[in-house]
Amino acid sequence: MRVRILGIGMGPQHVTGEVADALRGCDYAVAVRKRDDDGLFALRQEVCDAYGVPLVAVPDPERDRDDPADYPAAVADWHEARVAAFERVLGERGGTAAFLVWGDPSLYDSTLRIVARIAERGNVDVDHDVLPGISAPQLLAARHRIVLHGVGRPVHVTTARRLPEAVAAGQDNILVMLTGRHGFEGLEDWSLWWGANLGTDSEELVSGRVADVLPEVGAARRRARDKAGWVMDTALLRRSE
Amino acid sequence: MRVRILGIGMGPQHVTGEVADALRGCDYAVAVRKRDDDGLFALRQEVCDAYGVPLVAVPDPERDRDDPADYPAAVADWHEARVAAFERVLGERGGTAAFLVWGDPSLYDSTLRIVARIAERGNVDVDHDVLPGISAPQLLAARHRIVLHGVGRPVHVTTARRLPEAVAAGQDNILVMLTGRHGFEGLEDWSLWWGANLGTDSEELVSGRVADVLPEVGAARRRARDKAGWVMDTALLRRSE
Repeated sequence: MRVRILGIGMGPQHVTGEVADALRGCDYAVAVRKRDDDGLFALRQEVCDAYGVPLVAVPDPERDRDDPADYPAAVADWHEARVAAFERVLGERGGTAAFLVWGDPSLYDSTLRIVARIAERGNVDVDHDVLPGISAPQLLAARHRIVLHGVGRPVHVTTARRLPEAVAAGQDNILVMLTGRHGFEGLEDWSLWWGANLGTDSEELVSGRVADVLPEVGAARRRARDKAGWVMDTALLRRSE
Repeated sequence: MRVRILGIGMGPQHVTGEVADALRGCDYAVAVRKRDDDGLFALRQEVCDAYGVPLVAVPDPERDRDDPADYPAAVADWHEARVAAFERVLGERGGTAAFLVWGDPSLYDSTLRIVARIAERGNVDVDHDVLPGISAPQLLAARHRIVLHGVGRPVHVTTARRLPEAVAAGQDNILVMLTGRHGFEGLEDWSLWWGANLGTDSEELVSGRVADVLPEVGAARRRARDKAGWVMDTALLRRSE
């Protein structure tokens, strides 16, 4: 059977022409429906409705989010449970299935690993391709009307967990996916461009010197969560010159 | 007047719904036409034709590409000449103008700096916004069906010029924009995912261990240039485990 991994960007407004065409050619799409709904199932439903594709809900397995000591192993277990859940749906339905990836499949997304693992297990014969979508860092940059790096200079993309090691290694222009409640300790004088729930009607944007705008970021995060029921954020941090 | 900076992705297939809507609402688009045509004017023309927007050609100023000693100053001079060329067209025409950015405006693109500089010079009153587009690294990842980083790990995005300093700083997963004829010296055992002219009919893809695939990359680069008349490439380099 055929699996198409489709980046849908940060909302229906970001669906590209090729993803729209691909979707119209799919028999159905699959997506995880979380117990603690984060609004992303509804977003995928909206995209599927726009292109006339049925969306099949896949139950989300349990995941220990309390920062387990063996983080990679915990992620691996959770992936295997997700794999089995998706495998069941694909095995029952066959045909051409779409995985709708919020943002872009190439950045901090597990869909490619899930599909590769399904192929590896060998219970369902899958042939997959990937189409890109607009990612959160791109929308963050667009909203703040900035380039993500200085002229000819690098941008280091990492997680909140790994921000301290990036700073220690001398990185001075860092894009952090999902900052969570990170306090940006030691970076008080850096410049921050922050955004939450980008592309949705609960979008929030803040920019300025870290120490000056941290309270504003906290308030904006609460507003986003109050309005949407969930909050996901992204930030660019740049050492001041 | 209003300026809209629109990411069009790596080809017309990547135009998002919101960019299509924005384009339809513009009076015209502006784009540089290079003496040594790189095919990107024709690509912009194709996008403009699809949405019924006239495309105004702006002559490209001279640029010293021979790696001048004072690289930032050379880039600054060239920017100022470009700024003046765009400013002239915008000043004459007014209305709502689109800048069509190949890829995404947030990555290694000068459009935002050009528009900010026009605003700064004050000869034309511009109010601008930005919409994101699919970038080369995303399409590279999609074609190779990879995520740009290991689970929970960073990706360091930089230029071929700065690749050696990234490696020296311990980066082990590096996305290089425009590798040019870089030989990847010292990285012979690293894994490479390479692509040129991504999203066009002269697209080329190569992956494998650097030392094994470098000749193949050279041949693919020549094929892309022979077919398109230009070649632009991107690569992900990852230290083998």
